[in-house]
Amino acid sequence: MKFEMMTAAQMQELYQSLIQHYSDCKAQNLKLNMARGKPAASQLDLVNDMLTCLTSAEECMCDGIDARNYGELAGMPAARRYWADILDCLPEQTFVGGSSSLNLMFDVISRAYTHGLLNSVRPWCKEETVKFLCPSPGYDRHFKVTEFFGAELITVPMTPEGPDMDVVEDLIKDPTVKGIWCVPKYSNPDGIIYSDVVVRRFAELKPAAPDFVIMWDNAYCIHEFEGEYVKLPNILDLCEQAGNPHMAIEFASTSKVTFPGAGISVIASSKENITYLTKLFGIQIISHDKINQMRHVKYLKNKEHTLEIMKRHASELAPKFRVVSEALEREIAPYGFANWNRPKGGYFVSLNTMPGTAKRALALCSDAGVTMTPAGATFPYGKDPQDSNIRIAPSFPPVEELEKAMDIFCTCLKLAVLEKLLNV
Amino acid sequence: MKFEMMTAAQMQELYQSLIQHYSDCKAQNLKLNMARGKPAASQLDLVNDMLTCLTSAEECMCDGIDARNYGELAGMPAARRYWADILDCLPEQTFVGGSSSLNLMFDVISRAYTHGLLNSVRPWCKEETVKFLCPSPGYDRHFKVTEFFGAELITVPMTPEGPDMDVVEDLIKDPTVKGIWCVPKYSNPDGIIYSDVVVRRFAELKPAAPDFVIMWDNAYCIHEFEGEYVKLPNILDLCEQAGNPHMAIEFASTSKVTFPGAGISVIASSKENITYLTKLFGIQIISHDKINQMRHVKYLKNKEHTLEIMKRHASELAPKFRVVSEALEREIAPYGFANWNRPKGGYFVSLNTMPGTAKRALALCSDAGVTMTPAGATFPYGKDPQDSNIRIAPSFPPVEELEKAMDIFCTCLKLAVLEKLLNV
Repeated sequence: MKFEMMTAAQMQELYQSLIQHYSDCKAQNLKLNMARGKPAASQLDLVNDMLTCLTSAEECMCDGIDARNYGELAGMPAARRYWADILDCLPEQTFVGGSSSLNLMFDVISRAYTHGLLNSVRPWCKEETVKFLCPSPGYDRHFKVTEFFGAELITVPMTPEGPDMDVVEDLIKDPTVKGIWCVPKYSNPDGIIYSDVVVRRFAELKPAAPDFVIMWDNAYCIHEFEGEYVKLPNILDLCEQAGNPHMAIEFASTSKVTFPGAGISVIASSKENITYLTKLFGIQIISHDKINQMRHVKYLKNKEHTLEIMKRHASELAPKFRVVSEALEREIAPYGFANWNRPKGGYFVSLNTMPGTAKRALALCSDAGVTMTPAGATFPYGKDPQDSNIRIAPSFPPVEELEKAMDIFCTCLKLAVLEKLLNV
Repeated sequence: MKFEMMTAAQMQELYQSLIQHYSDCKAQNLKLNMARGKPAASQLDLVNDMLTCLTSAEECMCDGIDARNYGELAGMPAARRYWADILDCLPEQTFVGGSSSLNLMFDVISRAYTHGLLNSVRPWCKEETVKFLCPSPGYDRHFKVTEFFGAELITVPMTPEGPDMDVVEDLIKDPTVKGIWCVPKYSNPDGIIYSDVVVRRFAELKPAAPDFVIMWDNAYCIHEFEGEYVKLPNILDLCEQAGNPHMAIEFASTSKVTFPGAGISVIASSKENITYLTKLFGIQIISHDKINQMRHVKYLKNKEHTLEIMKRHASELAPKFRVVSEALEREIAPYGFANWNRPKGGYFVSLNTMPGTAKRALALCSDAGVTMTPAGATFPYGKDPQDSNIRIAPSFPPVEELEKAMDIFCTCLKLAVLEKLLNV
């Protein structure tokens, strides 16, 4: 029965039984973690062959280049070809980096501040004001990069098709608005795929700032765990067709393909952007780890074979997302105070509970040994104006632990709402 | 016979025979490279076991941490212990990074500009002027990092014991002087080891700028190719004793221990500095490649075993430095117009030829197919005021090629000087 149909006495009764269950759970002294999009050890075991796939000096040679030595700042040509295959662009449109795409994003924003991007009139640090658009709920680490450099973060609402483009199109008339963060496939945390229309509207933006940048973090570009690979319209091609060839900078990595934090990362953009950024990056590094690049090329081969490997990951992840979905359907849906998404890829479930109760629910979780992403983290400055959004990351715990964690989570969600309704 | 003792006719005769030899060399269409401190393929072969030393998930576990997953921003504890052993400090005094120590240095300077160092009153970008001391000849990539951020580069002369400390002690009275670049062991390119007195004077500096930083790039800390390991006084300890605990930031990497550009890097400094920098670095990355860290720990083990591996490298490098030294003794010494060092470690020989002839000599080299580090590169802004210093990097070519390259190089050196003396 929905809470709104219950009498106070019925709610009181439910509250008492939940409190009892909650204190039983607490007594178990559990330590469960649904905070971060971290694969489980058993999932990593599926790609352990990575450790032994490159074993000789000969295998480090490609195109006459020895991956064991300095050189090739933009990456091994074979690695650039690999990413061009995955992201459907030209090898010259890629820069293959080290183990972290976040670091590449940081470096782009950092350099925008200190030196400016390709089309900047001046470095952003010389601007009076820099504003950055943050579709929310979104990824906290993105928001923090721009916050770190003093940008004013502007919340843009998310819709089931992606960021609200009416709002975006209006905001970019302001020349101090310098860019936007996007996770176009299985967005973090909403798990939606931007619609073709939204992608096209992005490519066709006419921002007042000449150096407006779309930070297109394609983190989950091949990360389906249910159904077949979904093709997203190519933002780089569409930008070029729309006369905005340098506006989008795309990022991706193999952190959730091989090993998190030990993969390879990539920037894809116009050739001019890659040339510009490569020149800037030449000040800080001679070349990234090309042996690891060759290891990845050897193991992942090409897009087709990579998609096969992603099916292994899917076999680990799908049951976990099912646990989340079934628990929410069973424990939360009947009470009608929350809604959530049912993603087919990515690493998150985004849930919106009754406004004003998210923080309290997660505090209850924490006291019972269940760690979640802090409430508010999915909004700029860590502040959810509604105190409603919660990000669930079910990938790390084994299924049995996840079931326990979801039981506690659902209990805490209901408790927090009942506390509010009953004014406890 | 020294040039200064020759008659014009004698010089003319020598010049003609050199021109003939030079044009014979040119006709061979050689392509030889003595430009960069790049190990030869045969040297890299000595450490190929690196590729196969870590093969299982179990080997990725250490101290209960799975190197295959996200986490441990400051590095695997085992990797921090490894570096603490090498650099003679505590594990908590280290931050283990990715494949490039240059990138760590860049990040420190970059963050000094945008956010400030531990003891900064304000970020350096908010200062009217920032000056940085560059002992010269020195490493071009160091100088370029500070130039990139708009610092005014001040040349400090090198002596056989290190930077001229009288000059340094005078310059740091200026509060806009924010730091100094140092390569304390087998300095690039002079190949000297800073004397104990110089290291101590560094630690005891009392700079006017509270956030003055000694960028202590210990790139060749274990890189002897002749004789036994030489212990350098510990700058971090001495700084602490002198009441300057946060003034020095030390850097090192395994780029010339295992594979260049695919090794692991480290920052060592006071615990407070490491805490401060780790917090800043947390914005840009979740964690560096810990699998590669474990691979290195497994292969290199500890300082003692690493020094054994360095003897293998020495066996490759020593004969090459001998070729350089013998060619210079035979071909250049008799003419008395140049001097050079005879290092026992590192990757370079630094030669000072007759002022005003270095650029011309290297242009002649280039035309005959021998690539050298550009003349001037060892000075701020790439400008050697004397046009005299030349950096020779003999590590890359095989010995036979190196002999040819040195023959051409010596020929070009003499030609350039004779052109000047004869006014050709």
